[in-house]
Amino acid sequence: MDEVKEECGVFGIFDPDGSNVAPTIYYGLMALQHRGQEACGIAISDTRGPVGNCICHKDAGLVSEVFHEKNLKEITGNLGIGHVRYSTTGGSRPENAQPLVISYIKGTLALAHNGNLVNTGDLKWELIQNGAVFHTTTDSEVIAFYLARERVHTRTVQEAVAATARKLSGAYALVIMSPQKLIGMRDPYGLKPLCLGRRGSAYILASESCALDSVGAEFVRDIEPGEMVTVSAAGIESAFPLPKKRCAHCIFEYIYFARLDSRLDEISVYDARIAAGKALALSHPAEADLVTGVPESGLPAAKGFAEQSGIPFGMAFYKNSYIGRTFIKPSQEEREVSVHMKLSVLKAAVTGKRIVLVDDSIVRGTTMKNLVRMLKEAGASAVHVRISSPPFRHPCYFGTDVPSGSELIANQYSLEEICRMLDADSLGYLPLEALSEMVQGLPICTGCFDHNYPMEIPKPKKLPFWCGE
Amino acid sequence: MDEVKEECGVFGIFDPDGSNVAPTIYYGLMALQHRGQEACGIAISDTRGPVGNCICHKDAGLVSEVFHEKNLKEITGNLGIGHVRYSTTGGSRPENAQPLVISYIKGTLALAHNGNLVNTGDLKWELIQNGAVFHTTTDSEVIAFYLARERVHTRTVQEAVAATARKLSGAYALVIMSPQKLIGMRDPYGLKPLCLGRRGSAYILASESCALDSVGAEFVRDIEPGEMVTVSAAGIESAFPLPKKRCAHCIFEYIYFARLDSRLDEISVYDARIAAGKALALSHPAEADLVTGVPESGLPAAKGFAEQSGIPFGMAFYKNSYIGRTFIKPSQEEREVSVHMKLSVLKAAVTGKRIVLVDDSIVRGTTMKNLVRMLKEAGASAVHVRISSPPFRHPCYFGTDVPSGSELIANQYSLEEICRMLDADSLGYLPLEALSEMVQGLPICTGCFDHNYPMEIPKPKKLPFWCGE
Amino acid sequence: MDEVKEECGVFGIFDPDGSNVAPTIYYGLMALQHRGQEACGIAISDTRGPVGNCICHKDAGLVSEVFHEKNLKEITGNLGIGHVRYSTTGGSRPENAQPLVISYIKGTLALAHNGNLVNTGDLKWELIQNGAVFHTTTDSEVIAFYLARERVHTRTVQEAVAATARKLSGAYALVIMSPQKLIGMRDPYGLKPLCLGRRGSAYILASESCALDSVGAEFVRDIEPGEMVTVSAAGIESAFPLPKKRCAHCIFEYIYFARLDSRLDEISVYDARIAAGKALALSHPAEADLVTGVPESGLPAAKGFAEQSGIPFGMAFYKNSYIGRTFIKPSQEEREVSVHMKLSVLKAAVTGKRIVLVDDSIVRGTTMKNLVRMLKEAGASAVHVRISSPPFRHPCYFGTDVPSGSELIANQYSLEEICRMLDADSLGYLPLEALSEMVQGLPICTGCFDHNYPMEIPKPKKLPFWCGE
Amino acid sequence: MDEVKEECGVFGIFDPDGSNVAPTIYYGLMALQHRGQEACGIAISDTRGPVGNCICHKDAGLVSEVFHEKNLKEITGNLGIGHVRYSTTGGSRPENAQPLVISYIKGTLALAHNGNLVNTGDLKWELIQNGAVFHTTTDSEVIAFYLARERVHTRTVQEAVAATARKLSGAYALVIMSPQKLIGMRDPYGLKPLCLGRRGSAYILASESCALDSVGAEFVRDIEPGEMVTVSAAGIESAFPLPKKRCAHCIFEYIYFARLDSRLDEISVYDARIAAGKALALSHPAEADLVTGVPESGLPAAKGFAEQSGIPFGMAFYKNSYIGRTFIKPSQEEREVSVHMKLSVLKAAVTGKRIVLVDDSIVRGTTMKNLVRMLKEAGASAVHVRISSPPFRHPCYFGTDVPSGSELIANQYSLEEICRMLDADSLGYLPLEALSEMVQGLPICTGCFDHNYPMEIPKPKKLPFWCGE
Repeated sequence: MDEVKEECGVFGIFDPDGSNVAPTIYYGLMALQHRGQEACGIAISDTRGPVGNCICHKDAGLVSEVFHEKNLKEITGNLGIGHVRYSTTGGSRPENAQPLVISYIKGTLALAHNGNLVNTGDLKWELIQNGAVFHTTTDSEVIAFYLARERVHTRTVQEAVAATARKLSGAYALVIMSPQKLIGMRDPYGLKPLCLGRRGSAYILASESCALDSVGAEFVRDIEPGEMVTVSAAGIESAFPLPKKRCAHCIFEYIYFARLDSRLDEISVYDARIAAGKALALSHPAEADLVTGVPESGLPAAKGFAEQSGIPFGMAFYKNSYIGRTFIKPSQEEREVSVHMKLSVLKAAVTGKRIVLVDDSIVRGTTMKNLVRMLKEAGASAVHVRISSPPFRHPCYFGTDVPSGSELIANQYSLEEICRMLDADSLGYLPLEALSEMVQGLPICTGCFDHNYPMEIPKPKKLPFWCGE
Repeated sequence: MDEVKEECGVFGIFDPDGSNVAPTIYYGLMALQHRGQEACGIAISDTRGPVGNCICHKDAGLVSEVFHEKNLKEITGNLGIGHVRYSTTGGSRPENAQPLVISYIKGTLALAHNGNLVNTGDLKWELIQNGAVFHTTTDSEVIAFYLARERVHTRTVQEAVAATARKLSGAYALVIMSPQKLIGMRDPYGLKPLCLGRRGSAYILASESCALDSVGAEFVRDIEPGEMVTVSAAGIESAFPLPKKRCAHCIFEYIYFARLDSRLDEISVYDARIAAGKALALSHPAEADLVTGVPESGLPAAKGFAEQSGIPFGMAFYKNSYIGRTFIKPSQEEREVSVHMKLSVLKAAVTGKRIVLVDDSIVRGTTMKNLVRMLKEAGASAVHVRISSPPFRHPCYFGTDVPSGSELIANQYSLEEICRMLDADSLGYLPLEALSEMVQGLPICTGCFDHNYPMEIPKPKKLPFWCGE
Repeated sequence: MDEVKEECGVFGIFDPDGSNVAPTIYYGLMALQHRGQEACGIAISDTRGPVGNCICHKDAGLVSEVFHEKNLKEITGNLGIGHVRYSTTGGSRPENAQPLVISYIKGTLALAHNGNLVNTGDLKWELIQNGAVFHTTTDSEVIAFYLARERVHTRTVQEAVAATARKLSGAYALVIMSPQKLIGMRDPYGLKPLCLGRRGSAYILASESCALDSVGAEFVRDIEPGEMVTVSAAGIESAFPLPKKRCAHCIFEYIYFARLDSRLDEISVYDARIAAGKALALSHPAEADLVTGVPESGLPAAKGFAEQSGIPFGMAFYKNSYIGRTFIKPSQEEREVSVHMKLSVLKAAVTGKRIVLVDDSIVRGTTMKNLVRMLKEAGASAVHVRISSPPFRHPCYFGTDVPSGSELIANQYSLEEICRMLDADSLGYLPLEALSEMVQGLPICTGCFDHNYPMEIPKPKKLPFWCGE
Repeated sequence: MDEVKEECGVFGIFDPDGSNVAPTIYYGLMALQHRGQEACGIAISDTRGPVGNCICHKDAGLVSEVFHEKNLKEITGNLGIGHVRYSTTGGSRPENAQPLVISYIKGTLALAHNGNLVNTGDLKWELIQNGAVFHTTTDSEVIAFYLARERVHTRTVQEAVAATARKLSGAYALVIMSPQKLIGMRDPYGLKPLCLGRRGSAYILASESCALDSVGAEFVRDIEPGEMVTVSAAGIESAFPLPKKRCAHCIFEYIYFARLDSRLDEISVYDARIAAGKALALSHPAEADLVTGVPESGLPAAKGFAEQSGIPFGMAFYKNSYIGRTFIKPSQEEREVSVHMKLSVLKAAVTGKRIVLVDDSIVRGTTMKNLVRMLKEAGASAVHVRISSPPFRHPCYFGTDVPSGSELIANQYSLEEICRMLDADSLGYLPLEALSEMVQGLPICTGCFDHNYPMEIPKPKKLPFWCGE
């Protein structure tokens, strides 16, 4: 399932005693690359150098494309933040790459943001009516602007962050670098993940725990919803500047976004996916000889289904790992000469077998339809499709890029119709009720499945075009 | 296991009636990319155009790097061959990229070659003493030179190919494009694979059947050892110009090189790897809770081990697919800040479990040692290492690039010593006897395991440096 | 003389009736490339499209490097501005490339600026204390910010430009693109040039008349010092929103910066340089056989010297036009193996001759010293150095990047000492008094020669670093 | 005049005692860049290292594009040759770049060639009938092949070069690098230039003396027509292996190809062009106020014309040096918006003046027609066109790429017609008789003017396509 896109991943590190943090950010972003492949960047400063020595390098592309030995060596310091980005409507405007670095009353400020605000229009309009200018179409620039305005009359940068956060509505996991501090802040619903790690004298903030593992850091704890954490030379502080809200972690992180080896808010992503597969086997059992998953997204739930059902788990597809972004897509008339480039069936594994094929979701249904056909052409005697999440029906306002309602197959057709369209022998979705148990009762946002959002979504302000995207 | 390198993959297509074959070759090479990632190329001509209209584009890099929409559009015709290359000692000399395209007495000739000759030195010396000049260090140029000399006095290009083949000793799967014909030829031992496919009016030659599947072609049959197949406007012909030899297919194709979804010489690669895993479970059973493989190479044998032993099969590692060739490797002092970048353990899957870890081979042992340590650090209570091939001890003279003897751990240490070095709880290799049954009795070359080569290996001729590499 | 750098060139065009202006801007910038080679950009919108459709492409590099057929085709519209940049202290920070494009209360605003303000620090500090954030270190961003603030309460964008201009002190030739208008504004001293052209229904603003010629436009007139010109669908308007000042055109435009084929403020650059050469011949005559110039900068004044003195004018050097920016400079030990790469002497032209060698200025003196030596080694019997400007002694605050005082040879040594250091047979500078007559009495700024600046230069505000560069 | 193309420049250096010669070759090729801008390369070996250590780097592009600090550092040694190439019909096939490096019976041989053979077809056919294969379409490969064949039975490489030269018909200036020697050879007519220089313990061969000057070497002498020079550790030797021929230096080197600061065969290029201008003034005087040349090619002859006639010499055009190869040429409809991009008129210099406009030749006449129009539009009262060579009417067989006969304006129209087509007030060509005196009686080839070639030109052999280009 590659039609639903996460927006971003963030990483921050401060080593007061310390050595150059640029390689650590580089490796940390590498581990978060699955959260955004469109652009990335690193901003670094040295708290022991002259104030305002912040250097930023960012560009469109993968971490491995944007950074190379030469430019990575040119950015050094003991305090830095990084970002990987997948853009939504703003498109690939290069100026939207993050971290955003600006000068303000106290020097240089850098921000990296994961999530989406729902009141950007109002905030931007208020600023612009007071003479503000905007260089980008990102929420981050709006946040930076409020921060700078607050900082004029607050005692500390933390106070300015807190005052700003009180204005924001929506999802945000923020890492902020001021001249002497690293600040992390998570929205009061905890929609987007953020965790804290430690390595020697350095503290690290990251979207997922896998990034801590990748840089040899020890996981300390998740940042709590609504919590602001400040790392300075004096150590680490925590504050809760916002009124309490009902917690609502994004369930899609567990279903698809997060890396299989991460733990988010104390729940292992692997365990959650196995649990979803087991629940699916209970709610929608099948008579079959082999349980398999769409690589790679469907494999863990398939494993769970197999464990619960006792049907053997195995591979049914070969994935060509050389089909990258520069792959020349076949023209209409070339379709015939380029079938199954990315996935091909392991005939020997499927011939004559009844197969359970698991994936995490169905968006438009075209990919799944192809896979069912490929399995049948390879001799599978039956294909039972199982989806480890409920039907995907509503928009996400918090930073997930999903096709519009009419493109969602689950919005247009009944279960029976979809099953027929896929030419599957049966079709089963994870029941909505199973989601909570999948994450061991963790409070979650399930808005995209049941239209039950944790906050009111304001009507998009009728604004001059430039205030929105 | 990524320390043993295949040298090449070849592809050829002729559509006498037909349309432009360049996209088909492009997609075919994409499907063969696993056989060589250093360089690639396509040479094309049109049998209905002016004689000698051959165009070739080749360069260092992956297929997706070397070809893009613009240069692919510039090469058109109904007859063409392609090549993917991994170079051995010749290094990445750009002039060694293939297909090799030369002018000779009958116009333009293009060759693509997979394999390694063992009498190149003699052949080259004979030519050079007659005033020959060489532009590359490839075997292919030697073959082309003999072909051109023979073609002066033969009636057809086939006769010249046959006469040339009589001089060659070693492994070769060749595709040759003359102005009006596509020719495929396989050495009499059948060391390197080559198969024939058909799509509409076009015949296709490819190193592996997966390339036929990828371009929507039907598999016709394997080219037989010692067979020369000629495709012309008049149709297809077969000939056996060489004395019969004992067949000896390269077993490493089944163990590691070939794609999991290919069939080579009527044996499914998937079946062979499953069979190896089963044989391993019989010869070296283990008490365990989970059978897993080193991704991706060890997974099929692990699945076979699981089937035989009844122990559940599952994943234990997450592989970061964004770690590509441009990844900046950590310096010695950065090792600490970049652990487990490529593979990380799924802690939730392994904690408290006894694990069977399967891979296809061990070369130096360093990777395996790391994986065992990672599993134990993640809480595995035991790690039993199983290798789905016998210990790798001798050089290959036929086109596989392996470390020299002293770098091979199996040459230096006993089984017990290796097990201790890996910190594994037990270690088992596939018995030599199981190899034949793994491929259902197919005659194979097992020289790299038992020094039993299908032909005499001449002492390397003491030649002026430039005649060798 | 390539040690003194101009900062920028600007270009703007609006064709209310009209066709796509992007190619015109491209060719216009090509003609202004001599004014800045570090970065360039084009911002375009279409007044007939949806408001805010502004597209900008800008990057480090020459116009021919930044723009190619593909990206030039992607930016279309009937209103646009362009910029070529040479940066001073800000270095090559990519975010400093222009045009600057921002969103503000009325949509999208783009600016391109040539010149340097002297009160940026004060202006920036005032904004930042009110909560402003800055993304770049350019004066242009400060101007944009004031414009946006004024625009909140003015009736038209012109009023906002006028109100902003009242705050600015220093040199500026601005082109501004609002959603429906093209505005040009020149500082009240007229320090930097700006002229108006017309082609069919389109009006054009450009730093120099050569850019009008290059795009087939007719020269209409120079924009007057302190004048604001507004081009809209309704036609063209002029206004003088600022108090009158004593006019002070930059004399260095005539001496070196401007293109030889331009006319600035009604004076031909060619005529001015010829006149300087003539004045030099009168004030510092020489007995000689050949008058020549340092290519290309010294040739016009040499021609003037020859006309006045009656000594023949000719070439003495060959210039290798292939020595570009990627030229690998010889290391210290390679100096011997790479002499005279850029300029070599035409021995046949100089042997046995007494030579007058003219250049427009001397900064450090190293180049001139080399050229004198080369001429003498080639057999010149005497070399008389003549400089077509007075000794260069003081800083420029208005946008010219010159070495600091201690690097200027004229600041450190007497005329006699310099002559001896150059090993010249005589040395003569243009007298200060001749400058005015060189431009036919046009009022000029001669601050860099006589410390006589047209306005008070404020002490640089002791500001936080980030408010300056 | 940029429609006639030289084919190549060569450079070689051997420093038996010595240091790394790569930077010297790089700077030498920079100085020869005017002789070929399509491709270039350097091949280097070290005579003190293991035999056959030759490294070559070559590619399409300018010297400054193909070489950068990194790849220049990778090629080191004390013996090397270099080449700059402009290709003719072979187009920009990358495999045609030189030096050509091949392995042969004695190790590695590298060749660089300037000129064109007239019997390539015969030579190639003879080889190919004996079973030869060709990788390129260059004459150089044919030469290398003969050399390798001869070397089988000769005692020294010099003997092989001599025996090969006896087979060659046409123009050649060759530099050859064998494992221990640097050899230079010039055809017996001396059509293409080659000279010898010295710097410390190193000997240098170069197409033009300007390359010696550029690397700080002393000019020793020209290689004589038919001479072979061998530089080895033992010193330098000369031989004349070929029967004497009537000398016939290419006159176009003096008219246009060679650099203005070179001396070829003891004649200064500058002097020759001045002399041509003087002869032109005598044969075709004009009443005028200013003599100018088309930059840069026409300037020296214009200076000569001025000297003879007493009319002042000066500039009339400004040349935009930023219009490079990546310049986006205006489409038909954009012509209006991009006039005079490359050359613009200095109005102030020409208004009201009668002008003599000199260029070295007219090929199609379109450029000259434009320039005349531009001068008249700028106010010139008369334009007298003078050409410093005779009408260009016949093909060159020796390596100059000229348009075919029907494209040559002088082949299609009378002098009067051409004058009218150019809208010139008068037109004069250099008389054929003046050519000899232009080079002080040096024996020259004037075939392109009078069809008087120094050797018989064989009818192009009716060969299979691939033997020619």
